[in-house]
Amino acid sequence: MNIAIVGAGGAVGREILSILEGGALPVDNLRLFGSARSAGSKLLFKGKEIEIEQLTHDSDFSGVHYALVSAGGGTSVEYADVITRYGTTMIDNSSAFRMDADVPLVVPEINGDDAMNAPRGIIANPNCTTIQMVVALNPINKLSPVKRVHIATYQAASGAGAQAMDELIQQYSDLANGREAHVEKFAHQLAYNVIPHIDVFTDNDYTKEEMKMYHETKKIMHAPDIAVSATCVRVPVMRAHSEAMWVETEQPLELEDVRKAFEEAPGVVLMDRPADKVYPMPLEIAGKDPVYVGRLRCDISGPGITFWTVSDQLRKGAALNAVQIVQYIEAHKPF
Amino acid sequence: MNIAIVGAGGAVGREILSILEGGALPVDNLRLFGSARSAGSKLLFKGKEIEIEQLTHDSDFSGVHYALVSAGGGTSVEYADVITRYGTTMIDNSSAFRMDADVPLVVPEINGDDAMNAPRGIIANPNCTTIQMVVALNPINKLSPVKRVHIATYQAASGAGAQAMDELIQQYSDLANGREAHVEKFAHQLAYNVIPHIDVFTDNDYTKEEMKMYHETKKIMHAPDIAVSATCVRVPVMRAHSEAMWVETEQPLELEDVRKAFEEAPGVVLMDRPADKVYPMPLEIAGKDPVYVGRLRCDISGPGITFWTVSDQLRKGAALNAVQIVQYIEAHKPF
Repeated sequence: MNIAIVGAGGAVGREILSILEGGALPVDNLRLFGSARSAGSKLLFKGKEIEIEQLTHDSDFSGVHYALVSAGGGTSVEYADVITRYGTTMIDNSSAFRMDADVPLVVPEINGDDAMNAPRGIIANPNCTTIQMVVALNPINKLSPVKRVHIATYQAASGAGAQAMDELIQQYSDLANGREAHVEKFAHQLAYNVIPHIDVFTDNDYTKEEMKMYHETKKIMHAPDIAVSATCVRVPVMRAHSEAMWVETEQPLELEDVRKAFEEAPGVVLMDRPADKVYPMPLEIAGKDPVYVGRLRCDISGPGITFWTVSDQLRKGAALNAVQIVQYIEAHKPF
Repeated sequence: MNIAIVGAGGAVGREILSILEGGALPVDNLRLFGSARSAGSKLLFKGKEIEIEQLTHDSDFSGVHYALVSAGGGTSVEYADVITRYGTTMIDNSSAFRMDADVPLVVPEINGDDAMNAPRGIIANPNCTTIQMVVALNPINKLSPVKRVHIATYQAASGAGAQAMDELIQQYSDLANGREAHVEKFAHQLAYNVIPHIDVFTDNDYTKEEMKMYHETKKIMHAPDIAVSATCVRVPVMRAHSEAMWVETEQPLELEDVRKAFEEAPGVVLMDRPADKVYPMPLEIAGKDPVYVGRLRCDISGPGITFWTVSDQLRKGAALNAVQIVQYIEAHKPF
């Protein structure tokens, strides 16, 4: 199998490389692409140095089966034709194509089959916060259709990229040394702070990040009636997003049925022993693959349940989900 | 007026001292009490050193009009009789007496009059997260009775006391110097982490902190039908708690009416200009008195509204509210 990673030098690109290094796909040939800035630098893959090629309008993707693209929406739009021209399937991590009717938006545990029909050769990877949420919603939705979700997020610096992660560490160092914290990648100082603002604001005063959770959920779950109201907040954590959720279903659910559904759901790990101080936390979940669920309990304010999820946004929230889309297609394609 | 601060060396005690230093009450005589450990040390008040007295069963509070007590529930229970014996009114910051039928639980903006009838001489200060929430709920409740609240908190280290704040800074220093983070005051490492666990777990798998928000709200607002489901989370912030809230009322509300109600509500500052990146954040709100509200919008998942509040838990969430209770009583007592 011939694979290309576009945006190889970024946080998600590097994570894809590490997942492929672990043997997730039978890679025969790997090509790395990046901007003019990262082109020429070399990354190690299975003991071999691979040079990052500059992505241009003349880049030749012929022979590449899958291109895993994570270089921002602008790059995805500009180079989609270049990448797919010779039949390469583009798995795109940006938000550029997600809501296009002819681009499937896929979380393999939920709607893997949608990936089998990609007329433009583009399959979109959902937003990190959405992936984590729908993986947890899906087993509940099978017990009784989900109607309504309230969700507050605690999002790590990694969601803003590798440089943002460095900036957070730099801010603590600045402050410890009596300097003002350097702010560039975030809207405000993130060290010792939380920022209720991720991506740009939209007309209804929700952010685009919050509206992604609203729209993408309907599309992935094939459930136009699920309605999600989210408040997305950046917190000073390096990687792994946390989410506090309240979920209302058409029929009331027994907590034990939900617990069992989580235990059996693919991609979900129930981590819920409060008496032993066991619940998912980003520091422990960083670098792990599943969506962890804890703090499961009845909604004491009315019908519904409430729980807490943590998942590494660079793994399941981005790189891993992209690789799993390829795995799904390979496992299900006609001979 | 003669005032005593019990727990003068703690985070809340020191904040009360600073508020009194600012002239919030006409203090003629100030006495400071503390544990055996802090007794003997001196604190400065209006240019004069005051020695912390050890609180014992023989401590004499005669002549003290108000004792502002913040030394933990155990101390409050053990010394309530000593403190109130000679007619001193005890404003208690612990959770020990909050739900007792003969102890008023008071947020002056909401139910100040309850403070005028304290048969045991004890008035309880609500939990910090509850105070902040009900100050924001109250103007909404006046438009239409609040039925249901979903709330996710982002709670600062200050809620765990002065030593916990020091521990958080120490953890960043440990990590920056390649050492393991020292963990003592929190259940887990808080630096670069969030912890969905504050206070102990109860039988329904909510924490006591979360159940305080459920029970105290009904009592303060005289509204047995308001139901609150909370998820309380510690975040690596020094002081000021943040809360993401979804509120459902009996009658649907117009967003502009809610906005106006917030603008006019005592103790509330609306800080909501998302286009200018203006919304409350703990780093900016630390040390300030009001409850700040931002990110106000319709609940796009169903009936209701959603918003974000930030307030300094050491100020309105504890010390300031206690002082305001005294101010209310002084302003309303019969001649």
